[in-house]
Amino acid sequence: MNTQLNTTCIQTDALVIGAGPVGLFQVFQLGLQGIHAHVIDVLSEPGGQCIELYPDKPIFDIPGIPRCTGRELIQLLLQQVAPFKPAFHFNQQVYEVCAQEDGRWLVTTPQQQFLTRTVFIAAGVGAFVAKELKIEGLAAFLGKQFFYRTAPTSVTAGKAVLIAGGDDAAVANAIAIAEDGPNQAQSVTLIHRRDVLQASTTALAQLAELREAGKVNFLAGQLVGIDVEGGHLKSATLQTPDDQSVQLPLDTLLVCMGVGPKLGPVAQWNLAMERKQLTVDTATFATSASGIYAVGDINTYRGKKKLIVCGFHEATLSAFAAASYLNPQASGVLQYTTSSALLQQRLGVLTSPEKSV
Amino acid sequence: MNTQLNTTCIQTDALVIGAGPVGLFQVFQLGLQGIHAHVIDVLSEPGGQCIELYPDKPIFDIPGIPRCTGRELIQLLLQQVAPFKPAFHFNQQVYEVCAQEDGRWLVTTPQQQFLTRTVFIAAGVGAFVAKELKIEGLAAFLGKQFFYRTAPTSVTAGKAVLIAGGDDAAVANAIAIAEDGPNQAQSVTLIHRRDVLQASTTALAQLAELREAGKVNFLAGQLVGIDVEGGHLKSATLQTPDDQSVQLPLDTLLVCMGVGPKLGPVAQWNLAMERKQLTVDTATFATSASGIYAVGDINTYRGKKKLIVCGFHEATLSAFAAASYLNPQASGVLQYTTSSALLQQRLGVLTSPEKSV
Repeated sequence: MNTQLNTTCIQTDALVIGAGPVGLFQVFQLGLQGIHAHVIDVLSEPGGQCIELYPDKPIFDIPGIPRCTGRELIQLLLQQVAPFKPAFHFNQQVYEVCAQEDGRWLVTTPQQQFLTRTVFIAAGVGAFVAKELKIEGLAAFLGKQFFYRTAPTSVTAGKAVLIAGGDDAAVANAIAIAEDGPNQAQSVTLIHRRDVLQASTTALAQLAELREAGKVNFLAGQLVGIDVEGGHLKSATLQTPDDQSVQLPLDTLLVCMGVGPKLGPVAQWNLAMERKQLTVDTATFATSASGIYAVGDINTYRGKKKLIVCGFHEATLSAFAAASYLNPQASGVLQYTTSSALLQQRLGVLTSPEKSV
Repeated sequence: MNTQLNTTCIQTDALVIGAGPVGLFQVFQLGLQGIHAHVIDVLSEPGGQCIELYPDKPIFDIPGIPRCTGRELIQLLLQQVAPFKPAFHFNQQVYEVCAQEDGRWLVTTPQQQFLTRTVFIAAGVGAFVAKELKIEGLAAFLGKQFFYRTAPTSVTAGKAVLIAGGDDAAVANAIAIAEDGPNQAQSVTLIHRRDVLQASTTALAQLAELREAGKVNFLAGQLVGIDVEGGHLKSATLQTPDDQSVQLPLDTLLVCMGVGPKLGPVAQWNLAMERKQLTVDTATFATSASGIYAVGDINTYRGKKKLIVCGFHEATLSAFAAASYLNPQASGVLQYTTSSALLQQRLGVLTSPEKSV
């Protein structure tokens, strides 16, 4: 990968990696300290696990919120950070964090570079990436005849397409490429271990119609091998529930088996770790690298529990630590949002100029 | 003080001292662990500092709650702990905590004793008690001619009463004893450093009428000495804003100078302390005594910030620690309210019997 400076390099005091609940509260606590933050997330929207794993399930253990869904919690946190105008960068995965001679960190994603004085790793259980289909030799065709989650029309229109997976993306893709029109596939075969698909009632009804009309073929089983001829992917081997092998010719293979967390490149950033977690100091939530903090599910310390309420505390103390790291002359006197004119000014809620109590 | 077992001695697994926001969340986290708690507070209602110091002021830094008043936060927390049916004991101050031979703790208040396996000190900045009027020799008359906050009719009806203080209790007392009726005082003198009193508009209007009618006399200044004759309090010395001394004859002195936090007897419980705070282990929030935990503003550790959000984290980890202290055989596997049937059953929100995920 290219590690040279891109033409666009954002300079900032604070960069938060991960826009889940703890990353968002990190932005809030930094804001109270007068520190503006940029936020990177691999997903296309804020929320992390709350949105990926339980958007509509109730959470009961956020203090002061007897019941909310994952989505509701994220909406509340977004409202809370709004006064601090964080700069979000979605659909980006950080692949490199390099120390600079001046003490700053150069953080690189495929689209962007950031020169930052502090980094807050709030990456949860890792980036949410497509679950892999592990078949020997298949990786060589990625981006050519083999795709995760989405494929360009050029490789589906008029082609024999296999879709592996049973989630909403699998169903949506099957519908999109099987429907009549200039971009219709030649054939669409949807493969899942059993004929139970996870999608909205509307999508499932549309799919049922297309199956009825012979435009989508459903097969139960899983893909276990591929055949290659002249450098091209020719067919895939389906293992049926009754252990038979079936060869399925194909032009394009689209895999939609859901997304799952993956620690990803964090493991290669030379930070002290213990069992795949970043070890931190509980007074500051600093990692082993100066200016890099780790909060939420990605860190570990004696007594650690992977709970959102603990991440909120960690983000609070790391913001205080970062404030004195960025400005060693700062007083460090604790102020309260209830009584401090300075904090209320930062929050944009100070109506009349008053002295801080 | 009498430290013998009272006739009523409550036996429990967990006793929380302090019903502020952190004490309430302690009850919640203990509830999730399947541990029922008793709660003691010196105040007459739950809320602690939130209710005593800022019931109607906005708080902006509770995660996921962009804005709430102290009172609203307490109402939300009370709703959240409701499924766990905590037993509240208000208007009680713990004055003694004694180790028992079986490892339990005997906790004594003037009204009640508790035999408990674990104690959670969530006493904030200490008990809220009346602010003292410090005049040499005055303490000897407490409960006879000298009272804080409230005095029996027997010492006010037909008597010359001085009320020192400018808060709502001072105003309410002045009105109550100056109004016509069988219990009217002979004279009522209200003393405050300046003629600005903290009370509701209605109360201030009533007081103004009584002053107009000559039933309440207001004097600016502060009490600095007393005169005693034949073992009786005869008069008090008022120092006026222009530094004159005035002798004020009196039968009864009622002091209403507000309430303030006082650490109180906690300091005598032989727990390790540092600058008036209880030192704790950040993995468990255990104090130096086995089975006694300290959470919220009363504890200290490297990096400590006196913020509610930090107390919530501390209460969470101490509940986990207490659960394994009470039941060393427990699995300790982390469960989530979003997915655990056991936790949902404890919360009373499990509608259909499901397996825990």
